[in-house]
Amino acid sequence: MSRPLSPTVAACPVPSTPTATVLLAHGGGGRLTHKLVDELFLPAFANPLLTPLHDGAVLDLGSARLAFSTDSFVVKPLFFPGGDIGSLAVYGTVNDLAMCGARPLALSAGYILEEGLGLETLTRVVASMAAAARRAGVAIVTGDTKVVDRGKGDQIFINTAGVGLIPPQVEIAPRRATVGDVILLSGDIARHGVTILSQREGLAFETTLESDAAPLADLVATLVATEPSALHVLRDPTRGGVATALCEIAAAAQVGVQIDERAVVVRDPVRGACEMLGLDPLYVANEGKLLAVVARDAADRLLEAMRKHPDGAEAARIGEIVAEHRGKVVMNSQIGARRVVEMMSGEQLPRIC
Amino acid sequence: MSRPLSPTVAACPVPSTPTATVLLAHGGGGRLTHKLVDELFLPAFANPLLTPLHDGAVLDLGSARLAFSTDSFVVKPLFFPGGDIGSLAVYGTVNDLAMCGARPLALSAGYILEEGLGLETLTRVVASMAAAARRAGVAIVTGDTKVVDRGKGDQIFINTAGVGLIPPQVEIAPRRATVGDVILLSGDIARHGVTILSQREGLAFETTLESDAAPLADLVATLVATEPSALHVLRDPTRGGVATALCEIAAAAQVGVQIDERAVVVRDPVRGACEMLGLDPLYVANEGKLLAVVARDAADRLLEAMRKHPDGAEAARIGEIVAEHRGKVVMNSQIGARRVVEMMSGEQLPRIC
Repeated sequence: MSRPLSPTVAACPVPSTPTATVLLAHGGGGRLTHKLVDELFLPAFANPLLTPLHDGAVLDLGSARLAFSTDSFVVKPLFFPGGDIGSLAVYGTVNDLAMCGARPLALSAGYILEEGLGLETLTRVVASMAAAARRAGVAIVTGDTKVVDRGKGDQIFINTAGVGLIPPQVEIAPRRATVGDVILLSGDIARHGVTILSQREGLAFETTLESDAAPLADLVATLVATEPSALHVLRDPTRGGVATALCEIAAAAQVGVQIDERAVVVRDPVRGACEMLGLDPLYVANEGKLLAVVARDAADRLLEAMRKHPDGAEAARIGEIVAEHRGKVVMNSQIGARRVVEMMSGEQLPRIC
Repeated sequence: MSRPLSPTVAACPVPSTPTATVLLAHGGGGRLTHKLVDELFLPAFANPLLTPLHDGAVLDLGSARLAFSTDSFVVKPLFFPGGDIGSLAVYGTVNDLAMCGARPLALSAGYILEEGLGLETLTRVVASMAAAARRAGVAIVTGDTKVVDRGKGDQIFINTAGVGLIPPQVEIAPRRATVGDVILLSGDIARHGVTILSQREGLAFETTLESDAAPLADLVATLVATEPSALHVLRDPTRGGVATALCEIAAAAQVGVQIDERAVVVRDPVRGACEMLGLDPLYVANEGKLLAVVARDAADRLLEAMRKHPDGAEAARIGEIVAEHRGKVVMNSQIGARRVVEMMSGEQLPRIC
């Protein structure tokens, strides 16, 4: 879920005029988030440890390779069908580590609490984090709590950071997407984002939507056990959705991405809600689904392994990496037309994670 | 600066009545923070990796020992003489790692920005973080940015997490404080906390106070190089000050702590400001000073090594670990009286870090 520091150092270090301000879209995972990262954070922090992985950094300790990632969670409402800010804070960072191919070892938890928050609410969130950590097989080993004055926060913000160990033979990075590779998607999309939105004030749907937020580390471990060297790229399509994740891969590897809309599963209630709201499910955030760009000769075996795993039962082959339209994502639509899929440009769904 | 999860599992898992709410003092580092950790976080997260270190967790990777720590920063104002939220966010986590005896390797940075924040302000903070990271010899390798709606945050909150490597022979933990050990303090106290407070709206002092926030990793590396096995406990006395840090050591090791008030240096302008505000400097937060509990036979060598280092030039021996009054801190005061030093009970200085 993080949008960390990738190594592309931008040419223009000064981001803006003095009067420019932060917009909600700067946190949306789309174009403005990329602009902030590329123009402000990267030039400042440029250093040799910045890695080509989008979901976490890899530290080589000599004897071991460590994945390291962080995410803050500001989701609103705190509780929603299928999860809450606590479970999301655990899965978000576990999944970022998993997208490096790592087995998560330990998480930290940093709380920023608003004065006046009910301790009962905090207790519920903490219990949910503990349960999520058990489900993900990871320990929360260190933490921190700050309290800000009433009206200067919004109940609870949680940051989690995590460390994980990367098994030998695993070498996952967006730039490894290679012409001929096959793109797998572990299940249906957009459920998490649409569920959060349906819970927002003033929006109610008749259908019962439930977030599919889940930890992906075990599914990744299964893929690693099946064919570690065939795993070229892993991404969980969170903010900005599947569309933005694929655009990032196309840009990082300078390859063409071609996908087939009919292969991308969107459940009927999710599609209905998206239509009602004017949202394209391809841009809606997920937390519990992954994209895998894999070597063609191992694709069938990896797809089969995914489908045998409970978290990948509906996995599908949705496209491939091509030599044409490098840097771009092109989709064959339901009706047979071809269209270019752009990176999300605004903020579809603020505070979705 | 963190007050993480120590392994003491409390007997009473339910923290409060449903109507109880979070108070500013829950984030103050004193009694209420301890209560929250002991009664709410620890029972929920209890797991074998929880460590006896107060400033970070230690992960044994087999081939290496990794320190892992996190802290969120909500300091107000964002900029103050001697530093800002950015430098503090770097030094705070670097120092937590150093207090495990570790050499910091890498930091993450998680931003929670309020919609409408000036990008110029963000740019200044990020530049300051980058400079602080260079000074501390650590790389910021991964990050995340979230934006919350206007009025739901307070300009910028920053979380940093960090990982570091613990050299062989280093075994630092509060429980290692042993009767006969000597207590060293690396310099004068209370400057950071009083500087922040002096900047708060409505409070102005005629004296020029400046925060002494600084990275302590290099000073710790010097101590480790001098006599690694003699370093029993390291603590940076942040929230709750020197008094609370010593109370935590006395409680964790079940030893008596005896200190001499005359040996604890408080600069005149700091003392003056504390008197004006009715603050006891012993409870005021520091960021850039450390307490070391060391084996008696190595104390002189370690003190000399500290004094030769620019960040420990004013280091002093301030007390010792004794067999009497176990679990308590007793101070011989300036006027020759003896008094028990209690853990901070309320919130002296909200949003000091």
